[in-house]
Amino acid sequence: MFKKVLVANRGEIAVQIIRAIQELDMTAVAVYSSADQDALFVRLADESICIGGPQANDSYLNMTNIISAANLTGCDAIHPGYGFLSENPEFAELCQECGIKFVGPDPETIKLMGNKSNARETMKKADVPVVPGSDGLVTSLEMAQQVAANIGFPVMLKAADGGGGKGIRRVKNATELDKAYTDTKREAGASFSDDSVYLEKIVEDAKHIEMQVLCDEEGNVVYLPERDCSLQRSNQKVLEESPCILVSDSEREYLGSVVVKACRAMKYVNTGTFEFLMDKNHDFYFMEMNTRLQVEHTITEEITGIEIIKEQIKIAEGQSLTIRQNDVQINGHAIECRINAEVPEDNFRPSAGKIDYLYFPEGSTGVRIDTGIDSKSSISPFYDSMIAKLIVHMPTRVQAITKMKRALKEFKLDGIQTNRNFLLELMNDDHFQNGDFNTKYIETDFLSEGSHHAEKV
Amino acid sequence: MFKKVLVANRGEIAVQIIRAIQELDMTAVAVYSSADQDALFVRLADESICIGGPQANDSYLNMTNIISAANLTGCDAIHPGYGFLSENPEFAELCQECGIKFVGPDPETIKLMGNKSNARETMKKADVPVVPGSDGLVTSLEMAQQVAANIGFPVMLKAADGGGGKGIRRVKNATELDKAYTDTKREAGASFSDDSVYLEKIVEDAKHIEMQVLCDEEGNVVYLPERDCSLQRSNQKVLEESPCILVSDSEREYLGSVVVKACRAMKYVNTGTFEFLMDKNHDFYFMEMNTRLQVEHTITEEITGIEIIKEQIKIAEGQSLTIRQNDVQINGHAIECRINAEVPEDNFRPSAGKIDYLYFPEGSTGVRIDTGIDSKSSISPFYDSMIAKLIVHMPTRVQAITKMKRALKEFKLDGIQTNRNFLLELMNDDHFQNGDFNTKYIETDFLSEGSHHAEKV
Repeated sequence: MFKKVLVANRGEIAVQIIRAIQELDMTAVAVYSSADQDALFVRLADESICIGGPQANDSYLNMTNIISAANLTGCDAIHPGYGFLSENPEFAELCQECGIKFVGPDPETIKLMGNKSNARETMKKADVPVVPGSDGLVTSLEMAQQVAANIGFPVMLKAADGGGGKGIRRVKNATELDKAYTDTKREAGASFSDDSVYLEKIVEDAKHIEMQVLCDEEGNVVYLPERDCSLQRSNQKVLEESPCILVSDSEREYLGSVVVKACRAMKYVNTGTFEFLMDKNHDFYFMEMNTRLQVEHTITEEITGIEIIKEQIKIAEGQSLTIRQNDVQINGHAIECRINAEVPEDNFRPSAGKIDYLYFPEGSTGVRIDTGIDSKSSISPFYDSMIAKLIVHMPTRVQAITKMKRALKEFKLDGIQTNRNFLLELMNDDHFQNGDFNTKYIETDFLSEGSHHAEKV
Repeated sequence: MFKKVLVANRGEIAVQIIRAIQELDMTAVAVYSSADQDALFVRLADESICIGGPQANDSYLNMTNIISAANLTGCDAIHPGYGFLSENPEFAELCQECGIKFVGPDPETIKLMGNKSNARETMKKADVPVVPGSDGLVTSLEMAQQVAANIGFPVMLKAADGGGGKGIRRVKNATELDKAYTDTKREAGASFSDDSVYLEKIVEDAKHIEMQVLCDEEGNVVYLPERDCSLQRSNQKVLEESPCILVSDSEREYLGSVVVKACRAMKYVNTGTFEFLMDKNHDFYFMEMNTRLQVEHTITEEITGIEIIKEQIKIAEGQSLTIRQNDVQINGHAIECRINAEVPEDNFRPSAGKIDYLYFPEGSTGVRIDTGIDSKSSISPFYDSMIAKLIVHMPTRVQAITKMKRALKEFKLDGIQTNRNFLLELMNDDHFQNGDFNTKYIETDFLSEGSHHAEKV
């Protein structure tokens, strides 16, 4: 059993992981960059250690320093959170070599799922429905043209090692493909040190539906209710909800059986999330698997009562899951809004600086706020602009929306600009309220409808 | 239907009522004393109006000013919260005369339940079990001695109009009764302008178990799961939890049937709470009925998912309850700790002043904080010392205690002293953890065990 766990992350997720560690009666060690020395997560940790300068490469991505910090403080395990080193197979391997348990799957699995083309092939073999496309990499322009002609335009060119919205290009027709092929390869090489690309048919008018799993070393696998994360901007999720009001019980069970089978085939151990596109016919297509905790795990916690980070740590300890599939019930509806320090009116550029006044609408039933900031924080320009997750959980979706609207109205932050009003308008939007939106909705409809908080696209 | 509701209260409960009003799509009007002009509840209200000086008599108890404010702002209704005018029949009557709906029962019911002796008689007639005692008032010392001899010492002398721990005296034997009778009558006369007293047998080693109801104008009555509020100090609740781990399902159903019958007999309309003592044999004895919202309604909201303030407002509007008894299910376990600005080490004297830094442990599943303060507040010496309610809700009581311990540890308030450490020690106490405590436990055992945060009693 772990006695001491190092948290290799910052901000709100570091806070949540520290709390989970402490509630499991273990000691939580924070590592922080010099920009974060006064951060909330540092104060909440039992011990903390500075690992470098404000640039992520010098600190939160600095593997050697993090491993040293773990050794120095005598940690049994490292929890990587999301982002940073959470899906870095080299780091997971380094942990292994140093006798420190990486809270996540083995390096080979991370590597396999990190390569989108290999992940696709693995899923296909495990009978997971995938988008029609190149079976494997496209290694020449001629091959790209041929595959595209076979599956039909429009198609998507994707970097094999891509992620985070980078190295992806939409191609309308054969003429566009030439340039797109060269550009995507160049971007992939620059961003991911590997210029391999593959090709997929574009699934039009689709929702982003994802399903999280918990898998222990003994092969117990449990799937959790699906999340609808279709509301995105620049390939970043804006708002997530669970369950998806368009997914039926039998569709949920079908998707559950698909992901459970895939986990068994891969001998997957950890929590993880399968991302799918769901088209108008409710056909599902695998996009990718995240082998780590996700930002939006919160809404799943709310409707199931399962504390996912704690389960993840217990799995890493080698404990067997005590949750059985029948224990997983959906209780009500949960919505998460990501509150970002940004200026929607100015093309969502990040906003940084010192907080003058901060008030979160805590209290009253059904409201949860996960954040890494407090009333004395500064928002650093070095990191992601997400400063808080506002989560509501109510018996029905309509009640959840009412609660979210009131909570967003109450939220107050002076000194920094946020996307609060943008989120509030989204809450009041008819399409959102009716569940009538796909992954392109925010950019192609909502933002172009002339809202005064919108960028003009 | 109401369009605009005035909130005749302050602090955390004003915040909660304002939120309920706003979520019901009505306009919330706050009234405030000059000491509260910068308070959170004033900022959150849609409109606000100053009604007098800091002393409660000049503002929150100033009926004329409150009614004027309601007229001036065009309010349809007044929500009195708890304390202040919430159980004042004169105020309820004044509202009625001015054509403003008082969110509570009619003045006659408030008066009836306000007189503890009459309340006792009413309950007896409705087959609610009461403590053996004088049937009605004791009007002479001779009568008091005779009744006491019949039911057996020790007995409790109580002011008929008493409440809040005042006008109550424990009497061990016939010799003590003479002085106690004179003293209690004098205190009752001075505190409640009515020196009537009555007498009850003392139920030894008892728990405080209470049950809340929702009753509409059509006679629909629903009871909610019991709360264990045994942990008290100076007759003030310190910590509440629901359900009570010692109450069985059949006992809950029995108590439910008792309170439902009583509500029907009284034609009660509003939310309300029946307080009982439960002795070692699990016999229940009616103590009193509160004809208003209670501080600890929060834990009931958490385990049932019912938003009690909203239901109360809808009842006052004349709407019929949509909740049926079968809808009321117990989901998990909830605990509330009352965080007070006070100094436990110095006999719990109140602490007031300006807040330097405030951090509430919001976020992570199962934590709720209801408060009336923010990071820029001052704690005024004029009002109750309770500054926040920290509520946890988890699948099991053990998980709830773990969560509460972590949350209490995280909570931070600089500039004011609080009972945080006292509550934390209570969480770690074996008797608390085993559910082995009665209404006297804190004062006779916990505080005298030499805890360094304890007053010596």
